[in-house]
Amino acid sequence: MKLDLAIRNAQVATSSGVFSGDIGIFSGQIVQLGIVGPAATEVDATGLIVTPGGVDTHCHLDEVMPGLTHEAESFDTGGRSALAGGTTSAISFIRQIPDHDMADVVAESMRRALRSRIDYSFHMTITDPTPEILAELPPLVAKGMRSLKVFLTYDISRLDDGAFLDVLVAARKSGAMVAVHCENYHAIGWLTEKLLAAGLTTPKYHSWSRPKVVEREATYRAICLAELVDTPIQIFHVSCAEVAEEIARAQARGLKVWGETCPQYLLLTEDDMDRPDGAGFMCSPSPRTKADHEEMWDMIRRGVIDVISSDHSASNLTGVHGKDAAGPDASFRDIPNGVPGVGARMPLVFSEGVIKGRITLDHFVRLTATNPAKLYGLAPKKGDIVIGADADLVLWDPTREVVLDNTLMQHAVDYTPYDGIKVTGWPVATYLRGVRAMQDNNVLMPEGGGQFVPRAPYSLAAPRGIVPNGFVAADI
Amino acid sequence: MKLDLAIRNAQVATSSGVFSGDIGIFSGQIVQLGIVGPAATEVDATGLIVTPGGVDTHCHLDEVMPGLTHEAESFDTGGRSALAGGTTSAISFIRQIPDHDMADVVAESMRRALRSRIDYSFHMTITDPTPEILAELPPLVAKGMRSLKVFLTYDISRLDDGAFLDVLVAARKSGAMVAVHCENYHAIGWLTEKLLAAGLTTPKYHSWSRPKVVEREATYRAICLAELVDTPIQIFHVSCAEVAEEIARAQARGLKVWGETCPQYLLLTEDDMDRPDGAGFMCSPSPRTKADHEEMWDMIRRGVIDVISSDHSASNLTGVHGKDAAGPDASFRDIPNGVPGVGARMPLVFSEGVIKGRITLDHFVRLTATNPAKLYGLAPKKGDIVIGADADLVLWDPTREVVLDNTLMQHAVDYTPYDGIKVTGWPVATYLRGVRAMQDNNVLMPEGGGQFVPRAPYSLAAPRGIVPNGFVAADI
Amino acid sequence: MKLDLAIRNAQVATSSGVFSGDIGIFSGQIVQLGIVGPAATEVDATGLIVTPGGVDTHCHLDEVMPGLTHEAESFDTGGRSALAGGTTSAISFIRQIPDHDMADVVAESMRRALRSRIDYSFHMTITDPTPEILAELPPLVAKGMRSLKVFLTYDISRLDDGAFLDVLVAARKSGAMVAVHCENYHAIGWLTEKLLAAGLTTPKYHSWSRPKVVEREATYRAICLAELVDTPIQIFHVSCAEVAEEIARAQARGLKVWGETCPQYLLLTEDDMDRPDGAGFMCSPSPRTKADHEEMWDMIRRGVIDVISSDHSASNLTGVHGKDAAGPDASFRDIPNGVPGVGARMPLVFSEGVIKGRITLDHFVRLTATNPAKLYGLAPKKGDIVIGADADLVLWDPTREVVLDNTLMQHAVDYTPYDGIKVTGWPVATYLRGVRAMQDNNVLMPEGGGQFVPRAPYSLAAPRGIVPNGFVAADI
Amino acid sequence: MKLDLAIRNAQVATSSGVFSGDIGIFSGQIVQLGIVGPAATEVDATGLIVTPGGVDTHCHLDEVMPGLTHEAESFDTGGRSALAGGTTSAISFIRQIPDHDMADVVAESMRRALRSRIDYSFHMTITDPTPEILAELPPLVAKGMRSLKVFLTYDISRLDDGAFLDVLVAARKSGAMVAVHCENYHAIGWLTEKLLAAGLTTPKYHSWSRPKVVEREATYRAICLAELVDTPIQIFHVSCAEVAEEIARAQARGLKVWGETCPQYLLLTEDDMDRPDGAGFMCSPSPRTKADHEEMWDMIRRGVIDVISSDHSASNLTGVHGKDAAGPDASFRDIPNGVPGVGARMPLVFSEGVIKGRITLDHFVRLTATNPAKLYGLAPKKGDIVIGADADLVLWDPTREVVLDNTLMQHAVDYTPYDGIKVTGWPVATYLRGVRAMQDNNVLMPEGGGQFVPRAPYSLAAPRGIVPNGFVAADI
Repeated sequence: MKLDLAIRNAQVATSSGVFSGDIGIFSGQIVQLGIVGPAATEVDATGLIVTPGGVDTHCHLDEVMPGLTHEAESFDTGGRSALAGGTTSAISFIRQIPDHDMADVVAESMRRALRSRIDYSFHMTITDPTPEILAELPPLVAKGMRSLKVFLTYDISRLDDGAFLDVLVAARKSGAMVAVHCENYHAIGWLTEKLLAAGLTTPKYHSWSRPKVVEREATYRAICLAELVDTPIQIFHVSCAEVAEEIARAQARGLKVWGETCPQYLLLTEDDMDRPDGAGFMCSPSPRTKADHEEMWDMIRRGVIDVISSDHSASNLTGVHGKDAAGPDASFRDIPNGVPGVGARMPLVFSEGVIKGRITLDHFVRLTATNPAKLYGLAPKKGDIVIGADADLVLWDPTREVVLDNTLMQHAVDYTPYDGIKVTGWPVATYLRGVRAMQDNNVLMPEGGGQFVPRAPYSLAAPRGIVPNGFVAADI
Repeated sequence: MKLDLAIRNAQVATSSGVFSGDIGIFSGQIVQLGIVGPAATEVDATGLIVTPGGVDTHCHLDEVMPGLTHEAESFDTGGRSALAGGTTSAISFIRQIPDHDMADVVAESMRRALRSRIDYSFHMTITDPTPEILAELPPLVAKGMRSLKVFLTYDISRLDDGAFLDVLVAARKSGAMVAVHCENYHAIGWLTEKLLAAGLTTPKYHSWSRPKVVEREATYRAICLAELVDTPIQIFHVSCAEVAEEIARAQARGLKVWGETCPQYLLLTEDDMDRPDGAGFMCSPSPRTKADHEEMWDMIRRGVIDVISSDHSASNLTGVHGKDAAGPDASFRDIPNGVPGVGARMPLVFSEGVIKGRITLDHFVRLTATNPAKLYGLAPKKGDIVIGADADLVLWDPTREVVLDNTLMQHAVDYTPYDGIKVTGWPVATYLRGVRAMQDNNVLMPEGGGQFVPRAPYSLAAPRGIVPNGFVAADI
Repeated sequence: MKLDLAIRNAQVATSSGVFSGDIGIFSGQIVQLGIVGPAATEVDATGLIVTPGGVDTHCHLDEVMPGLTHEAESFDTGGRSALAGGTTSAISFIRQIPDHDMADVVAESMRRALRSRIDYSFHMTITDPTPEILAELPPLVAKGMRSLKVFLTYDISRLDDGAFLDVLVAARKSGAMVAVHCENYHAIGWLTEKLLAAGLTTPKYHSWSRPKVVEREATYRAICLAELVDTPIQIFHVSCAEVAEEIARAQARGLKVWGETCPQYLLLTEDDMDRPDGAGFMCSPSPRTKADHEEMWDMIRRGVIDVISSDHSASNLTGVHGKDAAGPDASFRDIPNGVPGVGARMPLVFSEGVIKGRITLDHFVRLTATNPAKLYGLAPKKGDIVIGADADLVLWDPTREVVLDNTLMQHAVDYTPYDGIKVTGWPVATYLRGVRAMQDNNVLMPEGGGQFVPRAPYSLAAPRGIVPNGFVAADI
Repeated sequence: MKLDLAIRNAQVATSSGVFSGDIGIFSGQIVQLGIVGPAATEVDATGLIVTPGGVDTHCHLDEVMPGLTHEAESFDTGGRSALAGGTTSAISFIRQIPDHDMADVVAESMRRALRSRIDYSFHMTITDPTPEILAELPPLVAKGMRSLKVFLTYDISRLDDGAFLDVLVAARKSGAMVAVHCENYHAIGWLTEKLLAAGLTTPKYHSWSRPKVVEREATYRAICLAELVDTPIQIFHVSCAEVAEEIARAQARGLKVWGETCPQYLLLTEDDMDRPDGAGFMCSPSPRTKADHEEMWDMIRRGVIDVISSDHSASNLTGVHGKDAAGPDASFRDIPNGVPGVGARMPLVFSEGVIKGRITLDHFVRLTATNPAKLYGLAPKKGDIVIGADADLVLWDPTREVVLDNTLMQHAVDYTPYDGIKVTGWPVATYLRGVRAMQDNNVLMPEGGGQFVPRAPYSLAAPRGIVPNGFVAADI
C-alpha cells in the first residue's frame, strides 16, 4: 500500500504523550504511525510539533436566526479562521426558531454548512420545548446531533426549570447530553434594571450586572436538575474558580457533570470593558480578574475544567449588527454580547499554557481536541492522533513569536479582543482529513471542503453517575 | 416592693444553664431571680423544671386568606393549644391579598388577633412585590413586624428570583429579615405532572414529587440571592442534612443565614404517608426517613439548625376544608398540605431531645425559645428567664409520661400526626406575663389575653456577614 | 435576709445577654438578680458594665519546675495582674517532675497556691505516662483536677503518640479531658537545625522554624488519636485559620474537640519578632500575620474557637532567667518562649472584640469566662452571672481609653508585648466571691485570698461524640 | 525495513482509547501502528484485545534482607508469575541494610535481578537516613533509581518525622520522588499491646490493631511534611475512601500527591482474616469491608487513586518462613504480613473493573500500566502502546472464564488469597520487548530475559505544586 501522505520526523503530540516519528495517511485517515512507508506526498516536519487538529465544541457559525437570516460569521469565514488557527472541527448551533419545525432549521443549517471549510456538527438549542419539538428530537439525535444546548438566561432563549427538565429528559431518552449556559436570568435582569436606573450604563457595568454569584447559583441549579433526572451535562464557559468548585463537588459525588472554559476567561478581565473599545470585550459570563485567571488554570490542572473552547461569537465592533449599532450612548444592555475566538483559541492556549509551563503538551492536546471530541461523540474520528482517526493535523513551530492582530484571525469579524497579545508557538500548517488546508497563514481549503460529522449516542452506561434519592425522576 | 408572684424552689432552666431557686415577678416581668422576696401569690415548684415559655416563630394562626376568610385555627384555639403545650408566644403570618393594600390585611389580622390567648407578632408574606406593596413595608416594619416571608414554590404564592430580590432589598432597607420556604417550584410541578400521568396519585407520592434535591437546590439559590444583596435570611423547615449542609457552608463563609426545623422532620417519615390516614402527614417539605432524623439531630447539635418551630398548619383530616375535601380518590396534588403542631412541639422536643439525651436542657431552651426570640426580635422580652423579660414560664414535670392524642392538643384541628407517641416530661403549668394561663391541662387564659409584641429592626451591623463580589447589589 | 453586697443600676452582661439592674450577693454568691434587697454594702454601677470575672484556663503561675524551683510569676504577682485586668480565676499547671510522685508535686503546687489572690485550679501536665504516674491520676482527678495537659513538642515534655494515647485513655477512665499543645516535634527540630546551620538565628526565625503546617499536622493527629479512644480534647492556642479549619471539620463530624486561641494570635505578628526587642514576642505557636488575625476572628464568630485564654508565661526580657540570659547572640532556639498576658487579656478582647464591633458583649462573656468555665468544670460556680454562682464580677467603664504599659499589667514580668496598644474600655473594679479585690487599678485582695476550685468529672454522656470505626479502642 | 514481529487485527487498547489494527515491532520496540508492513513473525490477534504489558510499581521480589538472605520470591519465580498474569515490568525494593553501604545492597540486588524474567527497577527503601546514606543517594538516583520508599510504621523500618524530612529533601535534591507506607507506628503498637493483653490474638485482630483512622492520620501527616519541603509523594496501598479523601483534598490544593491501591483493597475483607486460613489474608493496611471496595472504585473513577499495583509479598502460608512459623497459637503480631498478587493483579482488575463495567478499557490501561510508568519514570519506554515504546504487550481473550487457583499464579508462594475467585478475561500471551514471553499459561521467557530500566529524574518543574507558607523549607 502506498500512502497518500507522510508527515515525517515530527514531534507527534497525542493525548497521552509525545513521540518522535512519522504519520502515515491514506484516504484521509491515519493508518500508520511510527516509521511509515512511502507516500505520494512527503512532508518533512523536522523541528515541528504535530498536534491533532483543534476541536472547538462551542462555536457560533452561520447560526440560523429568526427570519432564517445569517450571523456575520459563516462556515466559510469562520472555517477559514479556524484553519488559520489550527482548528479543524467545530460544533455550531441549530437554534429552535419560533413557528418553525426543528427539522426545517436543521435542513437550512445543513444547507448553509455545505460551504464549510472545516468538519462540523451541531448542538440543537432548545428555547421552547413544546411536545412537538421534543418529539422531533429523537430522529435528529439519531442522525448524529446528539447534544442539546439550553440557556438559563437571556430573554429570548432562557428556559425555566421545568422546561429545562423536559429537555434533560428528552436528552436522556434519545441518547444526547446537554450543554448549559448557566447564569441566573432574573437576578441579571434585576441587577441590570438597578444599574440602568442608577445611570451606570457603560460596558464595564455589564460585569456588575452578572457577578460571580449569579453564575454560581445557576450552575448549582443546573447540576441539581441534571442529578434529578440523571442526565449528563456540560457547564459551558465557566468563568471563575468558585463556579468550578461547584462542578468539582458534583464530580466528587460521581455525577456526570463536566466543565468548559474559554480563552476569554484566561486572558481578558472586567477592566478591559472600561477601555474606549470596551464593548469588544463584553461576553457572558463576564471576564473576571487576573487572579481569577490563575485560579482557573488551577482548576484546569485539577481536571475540573477539561475542555477549552472558543464560544466564538460574531459581533462586529461597528456596522449594522455591530456592538455600536445602538449608538454611542447605548447602555450595556443593548450592546450585543460575545467575542470572536475560533482562530485565536489554539495559539493562545498553546502559548499561555504550554510555553508558560502551566500545562504539558499532552494536556494541551486533551483540552483543545481529545476531551471535547470524546465528550461530544466526535471521537474516535476526531481529537487525537491515533490509528483510524481522521488525519486532522496541525504543524506547530514552537519557537515562532507572533503578535496577534485581526488580520491574522482571518475571520469576518472586524476585530479581535486579543489584539496586541504576543504568543510563542504558531501553527504553520493545518491538514483536514489528510488534505493540506492551511500553509503559512494561507488557507487552502476551499469552501465546501468540510464535512458533517455524525455522532453516536451518549452511553448512559458509562462508568460514572449516581442515582439520587432512590429513584430516577426521568423514569417515572 | 412586694412581688405579684413568686415561683419557688424550681430547677430554673435558662438559655445558659440551670440554677435552683426562685423567680420573682412584678407587673408581668421577671424582676428578681434567686432568693426572692414575699409575693402576693406563691407557687411551690419543688421537683419541677421551669423553662421560658416556648416561642414558636412559625405558626399559621387565623391567617387572612383571599376573601379575608379564616383558617380553621384561630388565635383563640391555636393559643389554647400553645398554652397547653407550653408555648406563650407565636409569630403568625399576614399574607398579601390580591387587590388589597397590605395595611388593610394588617388591620384585619390585628383585629382577629385581639382574640389571642398568647402573645404574638406577624411575618408579612409577600406574594407579589409590586412597587405599591414594597412602599407599604417600611412603616409596617417600623411598627414592629420586622420579618418578611416568601415562598419559592406554590402556584399562588411563589416568587421568581427577581421578585425575591425585590423583597430582600426591601427587607434590608427597612431593617427586616426574610424567612424563606425553599423548594424548586418548577421541578415540583414537573415531577407532579409526571407522577399523576403515571397514575401515582396517593399521598405517598407527595414525597416523590419533592425529593431532597429540589429542597437543596432552592436553599442554595436563596442563599446566593441573599448574599448578592447582603440580607439576613432564615431557611424555614429544613427537612434533612443535605439541605442543612448547604446552610453550614454559608455560615462558614460568614453569611447571615440560619436554619429552622420542625418536629415533623424529627419524628415523621415518608412512610407515614402510606398509611390509610396518610394525608394527615403531608406537609412541605416532605418528611424523610428515620435515618434523616438522626442526621438532623446532628445538625442541631452542630448548631447549624438553631430553631425548632412547629409550622402549625390547620388542615383538618375531614370536613369542608379538610384533607379529604377533594374526595377519596383525590390525587396528592389536591390535598391540602401542612400538619398541626403548636401544642405538640415543646413536649416532643423535650422528650425526644432532653430525655433521650440528644441535647442538654439549656440547648432545649435555646432551640425552642431563646434563639427564635433573638433571631426575630422578640428578645429580650421573650425567650429566656432573665431580669426584665416577660414572665412567660412553663413548669414541667420531667418524669410524667403521657401518650399524645388529639384531645391533649386542644387545637381546632381534628387530629394530630403525633397520636400515640409517648413522651416523658409534660408541662403542668404555663404563665404568660406572670398570669397563670394553663394549669394541669386546663387553659385558664381567656380569649384576648394575649398581646401584640412589637419588634425592633434587625441590625445589619451585627458581627456576621461578608460582602460578596466587591459590591453590595442592594446598594446600587 | 440582708444582702452582704448589692451592685446596682448596672448593665449586667451575662453569657446570654445584657440586662439593666442589680446584683445581690450573700456569702460570696450571687443570690439575687434584678431589683435586689438592702445590703450591707451598696455599690452604684450607673454607667458601668458588669461582666463575670474572667476565667483564664491557660495560665502558667508558680509552676513547679524540676528542682521544685519557682517560675518568675507567682500566684501572688500573677493573681495581682489577673485582678487588675478583670480575671478572677485561673487554671495553672502541675507538671510531672522526673523522679517525683505526682502527688508530691500536687502538694507543693497546692502549698504555693496558698498565696494566690485569685481562685485557681490546675491542669496536670503529663510528660512521661509511666504506669505509676497513670495510677496516681484517678484520685487526683477525683479531688477536682479533671484536666490533663500534654505537649506534642519540646524536648523535655513531648509525648510520642503511644504515650499520648496512654494519657487520653487515663483521662477517659478517670473523667478528665485533655488539653493539647499541637506542633510537630520532629519537624520543628529539623527546621531549627536547618535554620541554625544556615546562620538564620535571630528571633524572627523562630517563626520560620514552626510554620503553620507543623501546627496543622499535629492538630489533625491529636484529633485522630482522641477519636480513636473517644476522649474529649481542647486544642490549645490555635494560631491561624487553617488549623482551626481542621477543628471545624472534626466538630462537624461530631467529635468532642474544642479550640482555644490567645490575644497574641489576634494582635501580634511574626514581624514583631524582627524588632530589636523581638525576643519579647516569641511564643509557640508563633504569631502569624494581620490577615491571620482577621481570619481568626471569623473562626471565633463561627464558634470553631470558643475560648480565649492568655497562655501567660513568665519569661522576663532581661535577667537571670530572662530571654536575654543566653547572651545577645543567642539563637532563637536558646531564648525562652512565652509571653505574659493574664492581665492584658480581658481589656484586649473587650476592646478589639466588642468595641471594634467584631463580637457582641455576651459573646465576649462566653469567650473569656463562660465557655472556659464550662469546658473545664469550673461552672456553674464560675463564668457567668447567674443565681448560685460565685460573685466574681468586673465593673467596666466602656468609654475609658487606656494606653497599655507594663506598669498597668502589675505582673512580675519586666515587660508586656502589648506595650503602647490603646484600648477602649477598662476594668475599674473587680470582685472575687463578693469581696472587692481591685478598685481603680489598686489590687486590694491580699495574698492568700484566692481559693482552690475543685472540678467535677467530665461527663462522657454529653450529647456530642461519635464512635469511630465500630469499636472504641480505649475499651479494649 | 522488514519488521521483526507484527501483531495483526487486534483491538489495541492504549491509555487514550482503542483502535483496530496492527502493531509493528522492530528491535524490541513499537515502530509502526495501524496497517503495518511485513514481518518475520506474524501473529493474528483476531478477537483478542491487546494492552500494554502491566507495570507493577510495588512488588517485593528478591528483596535483600539483613544477612543478605533471600525472600521466598525471586525475580525468577516472581517474574514467571508476572508474565503469566500479563505484567512485564516491576519495581522491587532495595532496602538499606544496617552496617552496609547502600551501594553494596544495590550491587547485590542488581546481581540477583540478573535472573529476572521481566524488566525491572528498584525503589530504595531508607530505614535510617544517616548522612552517609543520604550522601550515597544522588549517584544512585542518577543511575536511574529515582524513587525512595519510606515506612512510617514497623519496628525495623519506620522513620520518625525528622528522618522522613531528611529523605524527602534528599529526594527533592536528587530528583527522586518518595513512596510512603502510611500508618501510625505508635498507635498500632499501642493498640496491639491492648489487644494482646486482652487475649485478642487471632488474625482477625490484626485488623483491629490498625483501624482506618491510624492510616488516615499518617497519610495526612505524610502530606503535610511533603508539602513543607515541596517533594512529590505517592501514598502506597490506600485501603479506604476516608484515606483517599485526604489525598483528594491535597490534590485540590495543587500538591504533588498521588494515591495507589491494590487488589486486596478491592476484593478482600477483614472478615477473611476470621477464616481458618485467615493468616493468608493479613496485610497492612488491613483489608476493610465490601462497602469500602465500592467506595474505593468511586475514588478510582474520580482519579484520586490512579495506580493499582500488587504489593506482592512473599510470605508462605506454611514452612520455615511461613505465616505459621510462629506456631498455631501465635498472635497476629508474630505472623508475617503481606499477600502475593503480582500474577493475579491484571486479571482481577480487568474482570472486576472492565468486565463489570466499573471502568473503561483505557482506564484499565492507565491504572495498571500508563500511570505507574509515568509517575515513576518508566515512561515513555513502558506503560503504553505508542511509537517508540518497548513492545511489552498482552493479548487478552476477553471472554475466557477462569477460576483462580495457586497453580495458575505460578509464583513461589504456596497460596493465593484469591483462590476460587472467578474472573472473566484472561491473558493468553505476553510479549516483552517483542519477545514472546508467555503463551497459554506457559512462560517462555527464560531466567535472565529481563532488563534493568533506568529512570530519568523527576521534574520539579512539572505543572503541579504550590509553595506553602511562603518559603520552601527544603531550600533553607
